[in-house]
Amino acid sequence: MASTANALSLPVTRKIAVGSSDRLAPRLPSSSSVSFRLPVELKQVRLNVTSRATRVRICASATPVMDKAASEAGPRAPTIVDVDLGDRSYPIYIGSGLLDQPELLQRHVHGKRVLIVTNETIAPLYLDKVTHALTVGNPNVSVDHVILPDGEKYKNMDVLMKVFDKAIESRLDRRCTFVALGGGVIGDMCGYAAASFLRGVNFIQIPTTVMSQVDSSVGGKTGINHRLGKNLIGAFYQPQCVLIDTDTLNTLPDRELASGLAEVIKYGLIRDADFFEWQEKNMQALMSRDPAALAYAIKRSCENKAEVVSLDEKESGLRATLNLGHTFGHAIETGFGYGVWLHGEAVAAGIVMAVDMSYRLGWIDESIVARVQNILKQAKLPTAPPETMTVEMFKSVMAVDKKVADGLLRLILLKGHLGNCVFTGDYDRKALDETLHSFCKS
Amino acid sequence: MASTANALSLPVTRKIAVGSSDRLAPRLPSSSSVSFRLPVELKQVRLNVTSRATRVRICASATPVMDKAASEAGPRAPTIVDVDLGDRSYPIYIGSGLLDQPELLQRHVHGKRVLIVTNETIAPLYLDKVTHALTVGNPNVSVDHVILPDGEKYKNMDVLMKVFDKAIESRLDRRCTFVALGGGVIGDMCGYAAASFLRGVNFIQIPTTVMSQVDSSVGGKTGINHRLGKNLIGAFYQPQCVLIDTDTLNTLPDRELASGLAEVIKYGLIRDADFFEWQEKNMQALMSRDPAALAYAIKRSCENKAEVVSLDEKESGLRATLNLGHTFGHAIETGFGYGVWLHGEAVAAGIVMAVDMSYRLGWIDESIVARVQNILKQAKLPTAPPETMTVEMFKSVMAVDKKVADGLLRLILLKGHLGNCVFTGDYDRKALDETLHSFCKS
Repeated sequence: MASTANALSLPVTRKIAVGSSDRLAPRLPSSSSVSFRLPVELKQVRLNVTSRATRVRICASATPVMDKAASEAGPRAPTIVDVDLGDRSYPIYIGSGLLDQPELLQRHVHGKRVLIVTNETIAPLYLDKVTHALTVGNPNVSVDHVILPDGEKYKNMDVLMKVFDKAIESRLDRRCTFVALGGGVIGDMCGYAAASFLRGVNFIQIPTTVMSQVDSSVGGKTGINHRLGKNLIGAFYQPQCVLIDTDTLNTLPDRELASGLAEVIKYGLIRDADFFEWQEKNMQALMSRDPAALAYAIKRSCENKAEVVSLDEKESGLRATLNLGHTFGHAIETGFGYGVWLHGEAVAAGIVMAVDMSYRLGWIDESIVARVQNILKQAKLPTAPPETMTVEMFKSVMAVDKKVADGLLRLILLKGHLGNCVFTGDYDRKALDETLHSFCKS
Repeated sequence: MASTANALSLPVTRKIAVGSSDRLAPRLPSSSSVSFRLPVELKQVRLNVTSRATRVRICASATPVMDKAASEAGPRAPTIVDVDLGDRSYPIYIGSGLLDQPELLQRHVHGKRVLIVTNETIAPLYLDKVTHALTVGNPNVSVDHVILPDGEKYKNMDVLMKVFDKAIESRLDRRCTFVALGGGVIGDMCGYAAASFLRGVNFIQIPTTVMSQVDSSVGGKTGINHRLGKNLIGAFYQPQCVLIDTDTLNTLPDRELASGLAEVIKYGLIRDADFFEWQEKNMQALMSRDPAALAYAIKRSCENKAEVVSLDEKESGLRATLNLGHTFGHAIETGFGYGVWLHGEAVAAGIVMAVDMSYRLGWIDESIVARVQNILKQAKLPTAPPETMTVEMFKSVMAVDKKVADGLLRLILLKGHLGNCVFTGDYDRKALDETLHSFCKS
């Protein structure tokens, strides 16, 4: 599948056939006997397909093989995961060295003007590289940039206005393209700015953290925080493409890496038991940044996300399951102060609380509770909220959660075997109270 | 067609058949011999129609009849103009006394919570009435409201945040409904707030000015101004319905009435010559608030707007023609100060400038220039920009107009017979310069 030597080769969509060997699954000692059967059908759809989507059952081989020779020979064609949303479909490119393949980005730039939105941490590392990728051999394109302060606490309207100010002062027009270069905060803000500037311009996501690569850059959720709650102002707005250069993870701090793994673990818990089992066996490889393990985790996470988003773009039901642990987690982020804990850290504690509540309701057995605790500890993630959080703090933030409907708080809870969850407001309120009181001192 | 005595009767969609008498066209002495043939086909589609839209050619009779007896007998079924946008289709209800027909509003409320967004001028007049219409016989619904300062200069991010603050403090959830009660500024701000709150909630437009009834409430353009330009931040976001109670015009100041007529005149110029001719004969009736004349002008304007929006929701081309005079007009509003001139006043001067430029290009003959001047004077609208506007002020604001593409300013200009226009960047720059210099002292 993968071409090897030609740095400018076009990417090819990865074909997944029943029983084919999974070249992207890493060959790791501990995983040699793991089966990668996905529990559900996964859509694999090319862009511009007008007939009904074909569906292919994914079944990777029991002995996945990573083509090490290919990765050492130079830039290779990226893996492509397609997000199937009709005329808003787009590809996710995943691979090493993708920022050295300018044609990948350039084919998705509309018009002659680009605005890169990035932050103070990422700009010194990758702004020049991305600017070069956008302009090399492409003299008609001019690139502006705006550098925002780094951190969740800056994901607000005041900072968003700086993007509009820059775009308007630069006289960008409707045919421009916004490029989000950074983590989840940058992706959310740039995406919402793109959705709103002149009532909508094109944009591209270049996520540089595990968190944004496996979750937030895919699916079109954009927005900013309000002082009373997270992500309360925003839009569903899809990018032209998502470009994941896994090399950008080389500069990611350990704590950020672990934070992203919380979302990877989430996919296993809500819908992909085999993936969870793979993670249990390969968490040390992920934590030690084994490139093959990371690439596989990113790809499989994106496949899960893309499938859910394709089935329920606007979160009428299924998509909400991606928020396992997030309702508790958002309360921690809002109550404890945006950015004090990283998003994935708050989500990890939130997952533990959701799992605790699921167990109190009698919906899962004790072994799942233990396995969740264990994998989060392996990932060096919190398994309880900060000690200063109170029951009242949780309740007041959870009351404005987007999943409240007609006054009823709906939650994502595990139910049944590993890999199964429900999104429901039909649960015993007592279990929620007990969970909150068991994790809070007051 | 219209039921008469039953105040709670359901509205019926107005069927328009070839050669049928047009009950809503006013019986005015000067219009008895006017033909109402529309130059193009007009879609008439019901909601929930899944098959392809049926198209009906509209041809009102040469002797329109207004059923005076029906209007005197009590609330009557509204006229309905449908905006055909697939699963985002919605009705525009037009008529007298519609705010006294609660079921019209209530059928479009989603969930149990409503937030009315209005302003300091409109709240004392209609807030109680609308609240009553939303809640009478409907005890499960609770209504909050937020009252904004009145005027274009408040159409900014700071004031918009007051809507989010109120919505979040009131703990509204995704199943709530926002109701815009007021003119174009309120409709634009409430619509953008609805588009962005929790990434999108339902909303209803209740426009109370001619300007908003004939134009801004229909078609889903929402947004706010930036200090450097008008409507630069926003979203395309369609309402659940537009409810036009023509009785609300009884409290509209004369200057606001005239401002709205600028948009009515625009429809005639860009695509509906017969409507323009009707206006030439009935402008005095409109200015003296003849109810039948106003109702007819509103209906016909909405039909024109609905058709254009149905064909080009996101303004890839055709929809831009609705902006005749607006590029010059926005420059006046921005340069002269938001709200000093009303939107329609600025548009009127802008139309004169666009017509002047069209004539300089040799695209229209002199008679059209004269007829435009004449009808605007009849409507007591400006026919030139404020004296303080300079060529440089026009150019600097027009450079950030949303219709600029790859650095080229595209304009809507008249070309050919009355009722025809083009949207183009292919014009002699000299004509634009000459127009600007002829209307500005410096």
